[in-house]
Amino acid sequence: MRKILIIGAGRSASSLIKYLLDKSEKENLFITLADLSVEQAQKKLQNHINSKAVALDINNVSERQNLIQNTDIVVSMLPAHMHIEVAKDCILFKKNMVTASYVSDAMQALDAEVKANSLIFMNEIGLDPGIDHMSAMKIIHAIREQGGKMLLFESFCGGLVAPESDNNLWNYKFTWAPRNVVLAGQGGAAKFIQEGKYKYIPYPKIFRRTEFLAVEGYGKFEAYANRDSLKYRSVYGLDDILTLYRGTIRRVGFSKAWNMFVMLGMTDDTYVMENSENMSYRDFINSFLPYHPTDSVEIKTRMQLGIEQDDIMWDKLLELDLFNPNKKIGLPNATPAQILEKILNESWALEPKDKDMIVMYHKFGYELNGIQQQIDSKMVCIGDDQTYTAMAKTVGLPVAMATLQILNGKIKTPGVQLPINPEVYNPILKELEEYGVQFKESVMPYVGYNPDKISVSV
Amino acid sequence: MRKILIIGAGRSASSLIKYLLDKSEKENLFITLADLSVEQAQKKLQNHINSKAVALDINNVSERQNLIQNTDIVVSMLPAHMHIEVAKDCILFKKNMVTASYVSDAMQALDAEVKANSLIFMNEIGLDPGIDHMSAMKIIHAIREQGGKMLLFESFCGGLVAPESDNNLWNYKFTWAPRNVVLAGQGGAAKFIQEGKYKYIPYPKIFRRTEFLAVEGYGKFEAYANRDSLKYRSVYGLDDILTLYRGTIRRVGFSKAWNMFVMLGMTDDTYVMENSENMSYRDFINSFLPYHPTDSVEIKTRMQLGIEQDDIMWDKLLELDLFNPNKKIGLPNATPAQILEKILNESWALEPKDKDMIVMYHKFGYELNGIQQQIDSKMVCIGDDQTYTAMAKTVGLPVAMATLQILNGKIKTPGVQLPINPEVYNPILKELEEYGVQFKESVMPYVGYNPDKISVSV
Repeated sequence: MRKILIIGAGRSASSLIKYLLDKSEKENLFITLADLSVEQAQKKLQNHINSKAVALDINNVSERQNLIQNTDIVVSMLPAHMHIEVAKDCILFKKNMVTASYVSDAMQALDAEVKANSLIFMNEIGLDPGIDHMSAMKIIHAIREQGGKMLLFESFCGGLVAPESDNNLWNYKFTWAPRNVVLAGQGGAAKFIQEGKYKYIPYPKIFRRTEFLAVEGYGKFEAYANRDSLKYRSVYGLDDILTLYRGTIRRVGFSKAWNMFVMLGMTDDTYVMENSENMSYRDFINSFLPYHPTDSVEIKTRMQLGIEQDDIMWDKLLELDLFNPNKKIGLPNATPAQILEKILNESWALEPKDKDMIVMYHKFGYELNGIQQQIDSKMVCIGDDQTYTAMAKTVGLPVAMATLQILNGKIKTPGVQLPINPEVYNPILKELEEYGVQFKESVMPYVGYNPDKISVSV
Repeated sequence: MRKILIIGAGRSASSLIKYLLDKSEKENLFITLADLSVEQAQKKLQNHINSKAVALDINNVSERQNLIQNTDIVVSMLPAHMHIEVAKDCILFKKNMVTASYVSDAMQALDAEVKANSLIFMNEIGLDPGIDHMSAMKIIHAIREQGGKMLLFESFCGGLVAPESDNNLWNYKFTWAPRNVVLAGQGGAAKFIQEGKYKYIPYPKIFRRTEFLAVEGYGKFEAYANRDSLKYRSVYGLDDILTLYRGTIRRVGFSKAWNMFVMLGMTDDTYVMENSENMSYRDFINSFLPYHPTDSVEIKTRMQLGIEQDDIMWDKLLELDLFNPNKKIGLPNATPAQILEKILNESWALEPKDKDMIVMYHKFGYELNGIQQQIDSKMVCIGDDQTYTAMAKTVGLPVAMATLQILNGKIKTPGVQLPINPEVYNPILKELEEYGVQFKESVMPYVGYNPDKISVSV
């Protein structure tokens, strides 16, 4: 039997594990699932005959190396910063490796050694990064093969609550790491290119300069700019493109409301608030408002944010119970961002029957045979339940498929890789369709941001 | 003759040098002025018989140690991070030392050694820090000596243009390091206490929550909150005070206008803009605005900031020539903050005849014998010219006076010191009055932020 070692049995591993177990008979696979908690690993495997769960502290070198030495391929679902020791062991014992994480500088530095050993370290093969790379490169390559020239590439992705479970005023629930949602947009201006012009949006304006998107059957969405839209410019071969933009998808109205937290200062993660443990929700919001002996926290909030009592923004704040003087924060030495995350979790946690939804939307503008055209490519994936969520499926299935393809010798190119080559994306995108992860493409005349090609000095 | 070594002949050293040269005959002083540029040092000394200029590269250990070994006291007017090597040499050769800079952790760590050698390292004895410490502690000590209990301490300081030279719409010119003005308010929320409540203001609101101040004969001012108002809480003995706030003084209207730069993203110093060298002023502002083929940069700016054409905010932007398509930035690899600084310098540089102004304003609220009272203490200092500026006088004179007092054995307490003891502040504040640096005090009933002592749950 071919042996697959999966390290990390967290939420994102469910669909990955199920896929490989389901294929284990036919493909002759044996899955070893290693996690700090052997119970969690056992729960995921459900006593499947072709599997075993083991306890692993990733910092225990001999245990880790023993597992890696005795497998045929390694899948690391650890947090991104923990891959590197696993990667070094994989070189030591000459094993291929798959991760869904961004290639770190340390990982990239292994490239020559990985190639010298004819190994494949496939990274960024989850959802975003992952399916975004594959679905984008497939169309970009097709346009180029026909002799087309890329003018515009815009790519949007978001993890949301499924329409059937969408029952709060924010049209949002936490379907993934809440901390990343609270900190989104921080750490420098968002940077992108529109019609050849570099554009920068500072944090206080990121959530106020959104783009609108419509997906047939799912209604309207909005997207705010990611921090660095230019990251893959060279990797995708788009160095001379006129418009390059990446964004995060939310339901319309989310960003405007979220900006209230930004402007109050509630998303700051750089300092600890005094006495955070014993503060009430009301004390928390009042910390960001001027002192007044009699003006209510409510009127001060409305004044500070410029919102009237019949504004839906106000209802969104009320829904979170932010003005409750009796609920305690209960977190010692917490930053505003940590406190906000806790408060939001009470309103935005998925309920047992809730389903999540992934939306991905690419726009490709190009010129071909003198004609400017645009392809819009859209994918919506709804979770089955709280185990096989849309997030678990879209992150885990490509990882699982790539693992099997490498094992079967179908993916061959050695090195520290991204899934941007046809060898990788063609079979995986095709197989993903069987699992309901399907892009729908439509072709239309190119619009861009200057449809009439006006050339004026403004 | 007693030998004084001054390291650093920059702008802030003019009044310091003049004071010591003027006293050199009577006090039997010889001044050695060391600077990277011996010409600059010579210019400041103007061939005074009791002085000599020397060239010094502060990183040249033997030259530096030779100078320090052969003096009686060292005044370091170097940038703050460069004091520490000088300080270590001062311990080695058992010399006292004076600086106008904040005590760094490295400097504080020398305290035991400084005391063991019976040396005095007097720091933070310029304007702010310096005169603020002295003028505040004098009144706080007086209130305590009478048995009073401190309720409130608010302290404001600002370097401005003198009324006679105040001829732009911003009522502001750069009288000190422009870079610090551009970066003001960044790096974490402003933190202070009002009526026992901790308050935090995030960067996008710092310039929108100002306090107003009036100084008789000089009109109205405003102040925005400094980043850490609580820094000296324990040092001043104010651990249980109800209100503690420190702010920076500007003319009314400056902060509201400055916030336009904050909201556009022009004060960001964390990233380099693409092609900054060849960009025009108009390109610069357009980088922070959405792309549009025909809408003008002007209308997009007004839309983004919500300002109408007859708003004075708009005139303030026009005055800076921000929309000029022909003026080039000319700075390679520049951050937005560096570019903004350059643009502002063109409008806000002092002209040859311009004078600067320092304004300091303290409020002390206290209870004495069952009665709540308040003392307001205000100081305004106008520069003589562009050499003996208000900034040079208020920074340099206290340094010079402390140097002479230490030399004359009047300041005795050893250690890494701040000027918060009567031994230091009494004679220096008195002598400063002869130089026009005079605080005017007025007593009034205490108001605070809750004058009617209302106790309600809001």
